[in-house]
Amino acid sequence: MKIAVDAMGGDYAPEQVVLGAIDAVESYDYDVVLVGDETKIRQVLKKYGAKESERLAVVHAGEVIEMGEHPAQAIRKKKDASIVVATRLVKEGVCAAVVAPGSTGAAVTAALLGLGRIRGIERPCIATPIPSKKGITVLLDSGANSDSKPKHLVQGAIMGTHYAKYILGIGEPRVGLLNIGEEASKGNELAQATYPMLEKVKTISFYGNVEGRDITEGKVDVVVCDGFVGNVILKFAEGIAMFIIQLVKEAIKHGGFIAKLGALAVYPALKKLGKRLDFTEYGGAPLLGVDGSFIICHGSSKAKTIKRAVRVAGELVDQDVVGHIRSSIEEGEQYDSES
Amino acid sequence: MKIAVDAMGGDYAPEQVVLGAIDAVESYDYDVVLVGDETKIRQVLKKYGAKESERLAVVHAGEVIEMGEHPAQAIRKKKDASIVVATRLVKEGVCAAVVAPGSTGAAVTAALLGLGRIRGIERPCIATPIPSKKGITVLLDSGANSDSKPKHLVQGAIMGTHYAKYILGIGEPRVGLLNIGEEASKGNELAQATYPMLEKVKTISFYGNVEGRDITEGKVDVVVCDGFVGNVILKFAEGIAMFIIQLVKEAIKHGGFIAKLGALAVYPALKKLGKRLDFTEYGGAPLLGVDGSFIICHGSSKAKTIKRAVRVAGELVDQDVVGHIRSSIEEGEQYDSES
Repeated sequence: MKIAVDAMGGDYAPEQVVLGAIDAVESYDYDVVLVGDETKIRQVLKKYGAKESERLAVVHAGEVIEMGEHPAQAIRKKKDASIVVATRLVKEGVCAAVVAPGSTGAAVTAALLGLGRIRGIERPCIATPIPSKKGITVLLDSGANSDSKPKHLVQGAIMGTHYAKYILGIGEPRVGLLNIGEEASKGNELAQATYPMLEKVKTISFYGNVEGRDITEGKVDVVVCDGFVGNVILKFAEGIAMFIIQLVKEAIKHGGFIAKLGALAVYPALKKLGKRLDFTEYGGAPLLGVDGSFIICHGSSKAKTIKRAVRVAGELVDQDVVGHIRSSIEEGEQYDSES
Repeated sequence: MKIAVDAMGGDYAPEQVVLGAIDAVESYDYDVVLVGDETKIRQVLKKYGAKESERLAVVHAGEVIEMGEHPAQAIRKKKDASIVVATRLVKEGVCAAVVAPGSTGAAVTAALLGLGRIRGIERPCIATPIPSKKGITVLLDSGANSDSKPKHLVQGAIMGTHYAKYILGIGEPRVGLLNIGEEASKGNELAQATYPMLEKVKTISFYGNVEGRDITEGKVDVVVCDGFVGNVILKFAEGIAMFIIQLVKEAIKHGGFIAKLGALAVYPALKKLGKRLDFTEYGGAPLLGVDGSFIICHGSSKAKTIKRAVRVAGELVDQDVVGHIRSSIEEGEQYDSES
């Protein structure tokens, strides 16, 4: 199976992206097609002594979407942008999935225009795996949409359930609605309207409302919220992870002798802790609801994240998550499509 | 100055609340009136060898609002509830401020019914101080409202500015609008409508949009968002703080000998770190916009938080934050009151 990787996406492209791809083909059974400026990509391959092959190919794309560009306009204008070409390779059946580091907006637009939506899904969602005390909680939508309606959250709950089932291996994933209290009557208009609809969906296991603290507690396996809230939460977590690292550094710098020695001894563990809280480390988040396997990676992704993202992309295809979502939606979920 | 403290509020009432009050009158120039079941309060005072005095008085209230009760209904029904009596003491001029641990919903309702709103303020906001790399960032609304309109966010920006100016001592507080991107065009409908209104307010220093990670970065001094988002964020942070403590405990338990020794040596520092991230530790959050000084404390507040909350309440009165908000709003802020 071939995974198309946008080699020009993100802050550390193409070097870190190419490095991650080299590592991925060595570690997994998935092949990678690097899409982007072929000269630059080949320079990196040469630098690290890697050879182009059946398993690690290069497809040229002459344009790049820059972080500052208006995503939708740029995607429409630049037909030869690396992310557009990578998506086309999936549409045309050459590749099975896309790995897209960089601008989330550009990735979502490229996926929507290039692959289309699964019939019946109005708003694709970004599903982000978050570490919890009990394992992994999937948060969606974490930023594909900024104004969600109740039915979009319901569709998110269905898609998140399939992701948790087939990728995380959870038999009957519990779905929680992110809210400001446990009672069904709590919350803003969106949450209040979504609650009774989620209760009616037969193919999900609806737990009820969950609060912010329940995400890392691992009370449920899937947490649904609108994309504005999800995005704010994830970026806030990112900030906290950076803050922890700084506080620990300060403790080492200004602590007493014992504390300093102790802190130095546990520093590697603490850095790992910071990374465990840095949800951007988890190898990308699938964009669920588009008609193809599509993984979005943070703009700051380095080689390890890209490598992991290739694996997640391969697993999405292996487990046919898109197919499961398609049948589930086609079979007709029980929710009020007027909301 | 007398501060009315609801001695029956929160998970550790009355013992921890009374203990915090004892400590507060010993540490600060503020007097405390403990409101609640006088027998229970006196038992705690006796247990810790504290005496009733001019500086530490007891006012009986025969009822309590339980955490599970519907806040608005309970407050209307129980005229002799400790939180209702405490608020009445401020309305009648006996006390200068209220400290209310426990149910946020009950506290907000008690304050609204007992003190009323400042003329021109439609929705009071909870302003929560959050530690950042540069000091403190005030987040509001952190949960008084669940559906905010643009004008409510604008009023929050004005009130947060006064809080940052007079309580945190920041000369010209920068205000950021919490959003999912920096550009003015970003965000959900609420954020998009609020942005141009904030630009027009002459008495605040509007920085523009900020993202989740900018809160702990300390990019601005005041962050405005709707109460649903604010509440979710704060509870998420609470969850992360608890998660950190657990991860460190695990590292101590399962780490190698050196890591174990090191972790034990830095454990106190790490626990402090967890607490620094536990924003509920900051001595309560003022409910701004009601016509009186009112501090809400987390339900899990222990003595130290109560003690700090008494100080914050006293400072709110000393600095006449309510008066500053009142004049600022009366002088007529420049925002579209139709939104």
